[in-house]
Amino acid sequence: MSEESDKENKENKEIKQTKQKKRFNDNSVYIGKRPTMNYVMAAMVILNRGTDCIIKARGRAISHAVDVAEILINKFFPTAKYKDIKISTEVLTNDEGRSSNVSSMEIQIAPK
Amino acid sequence: MSEESDKENKENKEIKQTKQKKRFNDNSVYIGKRPTMNYVMAAMVILNRGTDCIIKARGRAISHAVDVAEILINKFFPTAKYKDIKISTEVLTNDEGRSSNVSSMEIQIAPK
Repeated sequence: MSEESDKENKENKEIKQTKQKKRFNDNSVYIGKRPTMNYVMAAMVILNRGTDCIIKARGRAISHAVDVAEILINKFFPTAKYKDIKISTEVLTNDEGRSSNVSSMEIQIAPK
Repeated sequence: MSEESDKENKENKEIKQTKQKKRFNDNSVYIGKRPTMNYVMAAMVILNRGTDCIIKARGRAISHAVDVAEILINKFFPTAKYKDIKISTEVLTNDEGRSSNVSSMEIQIAPK
């Protein structure tokens, strides 16, 4: 039982690491329900590397993403500029097989 | 008393008309808490005139604005295209004199 859970833990850790790697690679910040400043800081770390940062959000989180981008540029990273803002629709399928359309947004910010 | 309220009514009507005129002139749709389809229809009327339509929203209504724009383009006006998407911060002052920052968004859509 303990071995199994150890294995599970290890697997979870690996999944988490690949997830983090992926996130690291594509310079994206996914906006969810955590405090705004968490996302602002995450975006700053990416911009400080000298690479573009892409803020992504879906549905209700879109307004939150705009807040994050505005706070980042107006208060913490004045040299940063909006490079591209895209909006689109994603089709999500829930557990029952029903699909629903959700708006999504991507804000690309360049460090200078 | 009745005369006064008549006058008031007339004034209100005039204010409403100038408001509508202003809205008519600048081709904007302001997103609020009404049903999504109301705004989609309002935007369609503007696009059908052959002019660009600007969808504007502040704060929480921003995600609603993105929904409106996406439904408009994907379902009702397939020839329409995004021309420009701007995000910015507006400073609002409340009755007590305190100011607060609110994110705002403008989505400009061209009829073809």
